[in-house]
Amino acid sequence: MTTKNKLLVCFKEQKGEWVSGESISNKLSVSRTAIWKQVCNLKADGYVIESSSKKGYLLSRTPDLLLADEIREKLNTSVFGKQDIIHLKETDSTNTRAKDLASHGAPEGTVVIAEKQTKGRGRRGRSWFSPLSDGIYASLILRPAISPVVASKITLMAAVAVAESLLSLTQLDVRIKWPNDILINGKKIAGILTEISTEMDRVDYIVIGLGLNVNTSFKNTSREVRERATSILAETGKRFPRIKLIRAYLQFYEKYYEMFNKSGFEPIMSRWKELANIIGQRIIVDTISKKYIGEVLNVDDDGILILKDDQGTAHRIFSGDVTLARVS
Amino acid sequence: MTTKNKLLVCFKEQKGEWVSGESISNKLSVSRTAIWKQVCNLKADGYVIESSSKKGYLLSRTPDLLLADEIREKLNTSVFGKQDIIHLKETDSTNTRAKDLASHGAPEGTVVIAEKQTKGRGRRGRSWFSPLSDGIYASLILRPAISPVVASKITLMAAVAVAESLLSLTQLDVRIKWPNDILINGKKIAGILTEISTEMDRVDYIVIGLGLNVNTSFKNTSREVRERATSILAETGKRFPRIKLIRAYLQFYEKYYEMFNKSGFEPIMSRWKELANIIGQRIIVDTISKKYIGEVLNVDDDGILILKDDQGTAHRIFSGDVTLARVS
Repeated sequence: MTTKNKLLVCFKEQKGEWVSGESISNKLSVSRTAIWKQVCNLKADGYVIESSSKKGYLLSRTPDLLLADEIREKLNTSVFGKQDIIHLKETDSTNTRAKDLASHGAPEGTVVIAEKQTKGRGRRGRSWFSPLSDGIYASLILRPAISPVVASKITLMAAVAVAESLLSLTQLDVRIKWPNDILINGKKIAGILTEISTEMDRVDYIVIGLGLNVNTSFKNTSREVRERATSILAETGKRFPRIKLIRAYLQFYEKYYEMFNKSGFEPIMSRWKELANIIGQRIIVDTISKKYIGEVLNVDDDGILILKDDQGTAHRIFSGDVTLARVS
Repeated sequence: MTTKNKLLVCFKEQKGEWVSGESISNKLSVSRTAIWKQVCNLKADGYVIESSSKKGYLLSRTPDLLLADEIREKLNTSVFGKQDIIHLKETDSTNTRAKDLASHGAPEGTVVIAEKQTKGRGRRGRSWFSPLSDGIYASLILRPAISPVVASKITLMAAVAVAESLLSLTQLDVRIKWPNDILINGKKIAGILTEISTEMDRVDYIVIGLGLNVNTSFKNTSREVRERATSILAETGKRFPRIKLIRAYLQFYEKYYEMFNKSGFEPIMSRWKELANIIGQRIIVDTISKKYIGEVLNVDDDGILILKDDQGTAHRIFSGDVTLARVS
């Protein structure tokens, strides 16, 4: 732990009470000048710290930032987020940063988080609205020893992890939309962008990008965005602490990832199906090559959607955009 | 064309005759000092150029290097090798360099070639013996608009392109070994390492690495390597100009790639099957998860090997190491 971290722990233990520079100095065995320096650094991070020559210091506000130390403080995982958590005030895309790190050897469990993305990306080169400190924009590096054909499972379980995080912390009615969007009342609250670096038979790394609208207000966006997207703030009228959600997500995700490695995918897939509620629905799927209309027979363990068209032919669809079809 | 390139063309047109500095100076409209400078640069690349104050210059030997200008000189392609050809005297791995370039936007058709690799890689993290200027170590960047499940076709056609290049230029008995090795008399002469960067439903880029043993002598290698690997030199006792092979490879590969985009994969796959001669064979396949023994029923259009084991169960195998099984 750095002096800065130790100091922060020290302040937090005071729970809103003043603490003298002298007592901190004794406790941490550092000079009062060193403490003053670190107080400046904490202030630069956004912590509000009052100081008085008589009373010492008082931590009066923790910033609403997804700082590595803040996330780790109550994070109950063994690997996810236990490696580097790289917190950026602004970046182009957390997935792009994470891929860069992964290609230079960053280990499984490394997380890249940005307060703001200037080129936030969704599937198929779409953009992801990423305003400052409103959403969670986070990318996780995984290195599973799997063939690339199995990689879709990693995405499916990410969607379940996001859904379970929201369900555990809010009263919202959360749904998964195939392949990997999270909806509230039919509007998108979160999306997952999976990017894979692989040989033909062996994955090198997978980057799982999460965009989750927490305190996002869509006031100044187009009508199209407002009709399609939502956030916790938009649904409840209240701001929600992002830090709790990112912790819950990493914890649920690690739990499913371990489950997958040890005892298989079946329980995760059956939870996915409960949350997705797509089987038996009549849908339209727009894929990169073709458009399909028909009834969903199943979504298999690789996330492949089996669709029976009106001629009775079954199609195996890997990915695409789904809309519910009006019953004819 | 740079002055250096123009000068080289000029020398080559002389076909072993002397050419005066003055006549080159007039022809290219550059000073004699500029010519002298570029002669120095060509010499640094390995060209042997004699000079005489009376007779001028004589190109007496072109180096046996896979220089971009030399490859392009008679390269009959539209895209492959028509973008940058990056020629490196030494690098860690041409695939690693090509992935770096691709992730920063290098276009389809970009080629990275090294005279020597210090960390030449094969499938499954194996090394590839890459001694100085003996083999072809080349990586090609492709950006096909395909789903990653189709990517195996790109590898299959690379194997056919390598085999056809060897067949068209040598008398050797070339075979493809599933999934993507090239053999002569049961020994490996070439390998292909495909690395893919992809989203779930859309490939970003594919890097196809080729290691082809041309003038490689295995004298100082272990017995194990000598038993498994071969080269044109080892098979014929003669050195072969690498430049002809790299050109042929790029030409064949581009031809198949265009064929695949326009008229489909069937003719390429049927040629693959002719060259592989695996169907009906009894084999052992070692995959990352399991070992299979049985008879090959088919290799499908995605390169998936369909194996019937001794219990009569058919298995779909994506990739692995094949050895012929003794008939029991």
